[in-house]
Amino acid sequence: MITLYDFPRAPSPRRARVLLAEKGIPHETVIVDLAQQEQLGEAFRAINPRCTVPALRLDDGTVLTDNAGIAAWAEAAYPEPPLLGVTPIEKAEIASWNARIEQEGFYAVAEAMRNSAPAMKGRALTGAVDYEQIPELAERGLARLGHFFEMLDAHLADRAFVATDRFSLADISAVIVTDFARVVRLKAAEEFAHIGKWRAHMAERPSFSL
Amino acid sequence: MITLYDFPRAPSPRRARVLLAEKGIPHETVIVDLAQQEQLGEAFRAINPRCTVPALRLDDGTVLTDNAGIAAWAEAAYPEPPLLGVTPIEKAEIASWNARIEQEGFYAVAEAMRNSAPAMKGRALTGAVDYEQIPELAERGLARLGHFFEMLDAHLADRAFVATDRFSLADISAVIVTDFARVVRLKAAEEFAHIGKWRAHMAERPSFSL
Repeated sequence: MITLYDFPRAPSPRRARVLLAEKGIPHETVIVDLAQQEQLGEAFRAINPRCTVPALRLDDGTVLTDNAGIAAWAEAAYPEPPLLGVTPIEKAEIASWNARIEQEGFYAVAEAMRNSAPAMKGRALTGAVDYEQIPELAERGLARLGHFFEMLDAHLADRAFVATDRFSLADISAVIVTDFARVVRLKAAEEFAHIGKWRAHMAERPSFSL
Repeated sequence: MITLYDFPRAPSPRRARVLLAEKGIPHETVIVDLAQQEQLGEAFRAINPRCTVPALRLDDGTVLTDNAGIAAWAEAAYPEPPLLGVTPIEKAEIASWNARIEQEGFYAVAEAMRNSAPAMKGRALTGAVDYEQIPELAERGLARLGHFFEMLDAHLADRAFVATDRFSLADISAVIVTDFARVVRLKAAEEFAHIGKWRAHMAERPSFSL
């Protein structure tokens, strides 16, 4: 049986959770309680030494330790429906948008949130090593995030999906970063008209209630 | 004809340059002079509004604007030799290592270098928007980079390649971040024995003289 190591409120494991649902990949779920720092304890460290979720244990015991690995595996092992594109140019477009959403979106929210929230003191980055908060980086993250959503909103002005002409991994990542940004009080789906319309369209997919 | 927008001394376009060489993809090269900030000028902005290299213009005029898109396109359009893996688990392993090398390696060197170098004042991030340097982030980048190379060195102790049992995109990225780290005076191939041995092995490939 495939096992997803997950935590309900965190954005990174949500990316894997929605992907598995869209692909219809049967699995069981184990909750790793990030609120109690269970990801840093010995039991989970033995499963994923990177001390992060999501992690996905496959039938043969292989453990995939990040979203990049999980998406590549899922697309190859369960090709239908394709979420990483079919033609070379579609594959490029989806990979590029997904990377851009990570770099300009997810990292920006994470910078803004983890470098300012009192609960994240000494935990400014995920993973096994502790890093102190850098308040200037929180400010920069917010500024970057604003630019990211302006760009995404303009991009979505005449499009139904973030990349190509159908639903893809880029939509999954973009929905999750849009929702996650509320943690730093940026309500992108309310503040940006095209993002709002696209997000409402995405809400029709049952996977996004996960 | 395919056109690579490139700059010789920069690490990001080198990733595309080596990939195209390993795949044997014919192309012409146009140099964008980053030293003169040509990437921010109107002419290049019309080609890649993200103002970054590498960019790859395809036969049909499509412009791929980052390494994620270029690698996905190249693997699909020129499957041989495979550089992103063949089986689902190989694909996962390579995607995961490549992402990890980006996040923990490339971003760490970039943080250390761009937040400290006098020439990078006001240009702490690549791209169209100017951001001021954050000295604490330069320090954190150096610390992160040390942890990254310790991890990579331990990983390479009993391996010939970074991921799977043959040459892949993960080796390309790891060689380039290892070489790039010299810009912040971290000579990983000299300081870490296993990295040194693997880097010497990689030097046998003509693509790495590019």
